[in-house]
Amino acid sequence: TGTLSKDDLALGNINRTQQIMKHGYPSLDNIRIFDNYILSYDRRNRVANWVFEHLSSEKMRSAESVDRGKCEFREDPNIHPYFRSTNQDYKGSGYDRGHLAAAANHRFTQMLMDQTFFLSNMAPQVGKGFNRDKWNELEIEVRKMVKENDNVWVCTGPLYLPKKEADNKFYVRYEVIGPQHVAVPTHFFKVVLCEKKGEYKLFSYVLPNLPCDQSTPLSSYLVPIDSIERAAGFLIFDKMPRKAIKSLNGK
Amino acid sequence: TGTLSKDDLALGNINRTQQIMKHGYPSLDNIRIFDNYILSYDRRNRVANWVFEHLSSEKMRSAESVDRGKCEFREDPNIHPYFRSTNQDYKGSGYDRGHLAAAANHRFTQMLMDQTFFLSNMAPQVGKGFNRDKWNELEIEVRKMVKENDNVWVCTGPLYLPKKEADNKFYVRYEVIGPQHVAVPTHFFKVVLCEKKGEYKLFSYVLPNLPCDQSTPLSSYLVPIDSIERAAGFLIFDKMPRKAIKSLNGK
Ligand SMILES: [Mg+2]
Ligand SMILES: [Mg+2]
Repeated sequence: TGTLSKDDLALGNINRTQQIMKHGYPSLDNIRIFDNYILSYDRRNRVANWVFEHLSSEKMRSAESVDRGKCEFREDPNIHPYFRSTNQDYKGSGYDRGHLAAAANHRFTQMLMDQTFFLSNMAPQVGKGFNRDKWNELEIEVRKMVKENDNVWVCTGPLYLPKKEADNKFYVRYEVIGPQHVAVPTHFFKVVLCEKKGEYKLFSYVLPNLPCDQSTPLSSYLVPIDSIERAAGFLIFDKMPRKAIKSLNGK
Repeated sequence: TGTLSKDDLALGNINRTQQIMKHGYPSLDNIRIFDNYILSYDRRNRVANWVFEHLSSEKMRSAESVDRGKCEFREDPNIHPYFRSTNQDYKGSGYDRGHLAAAANHRFTQMLMDQTFFLSNMAPQVGKGFNRDKWNELEIEVRKMVKENDNVWVCTGPLYLPKKEADNKFYVRYEVIGPQHVAVPTHFFKVVLCEKKGEYKLFSYVLPNLPCDQSTPLSSYLVPIDSIERAAGFLIFDKMPRKAIKSLNGK
């Protein structure tokens, strides 16, 4: 029974789970506990609500034998078939199967990297200009932050943002792909909490799921964290008092 | 702390809660336990995921003093302000504040009816032709079923159904109203499980959130329950084996 409730946390590696989720669960809906990351699955949209990672130089150490080429995208058998995204959904859709917890953050063992290839950790992402470019650049930036800090917590997820249409009203509109109707998020967020010698910094990004101008610096995508929380429908790092955070988005 | 987890169920009237939820929780996300109905709140859309009622002739008995005119629509203070729908959101939107658990099912005491007026039990509904007409007719039909059976369980909620657009792709599209961006569902479902002398019948309806042709009979809105479950993202009455149900949608 893959979707675990709070009660079931004891089934996983409780210590690692507590480390990853140290600053609070954004929600308790359909939690999936993997060995090195944790997610909440949105069964209506067939995409995660959020994915949490805890990264450090030590935990991100790369075992030489770990080979991304050996990994295969596969259905998550612990999601009920009604709500499960499949490779078939992505096929011919024009979208990449984009990792939420980035594969390259999980090189410690082959099994940890393999676990990032479950489709419950994927979302339909624009390939060129986004997944393979600007979003990848952000993932690389996060790994740079890991090297410069003692601990880094990352919360990543999709957004479905409203837009004003010609009638002056606001509408949420997003494509759904494949027989399972997997939602194509309009945007993705990544919130990064860095800790160094007990001092905390937070960075909160929102990028549109579109080909991004590669010359736009990542800092242009920084937004107040509450704008992400309001749109996503949950609080992020809510156990970490905002007053205890020394800098927000570099300010 | 209004959004209760599984752990917190003991805080409410555990016996009544168990009666209402006898055939299973569709999900455990942001559960609100009221005295006579229970809901799961979708903080992203600011509308419930589902609302559960347990109805019987006895429990639906009307106290003479109960007066709908005394009830007021009010914010649910137990929902975090970021995610709470407000009267301001509905004002000038053109939509009714439509009850999910119908007020008229909760006439046993004034307090029980008052509790159905929390905005967490409301969704933006088209007034004329829907909330005040066809949807109301369905609510009356349910109360008729209550009179003809020993026990009736009702699960009611919104749907956000995809539609094929001109480019042959499928899109989910819905309006959001007010400063809080309360979602306007494209459809509503109501699943009714009737029990009489140990025999079960199930009826599952989906109606579009539009002015409905009042001459269309309610039976035209019956759909297979799994089509509701797949679209809603949860299972309904999943503790009740389908084989144990004598008739589905009258068949
Ligand atoms: Mg990627
Ligand atoms: Mg109504």
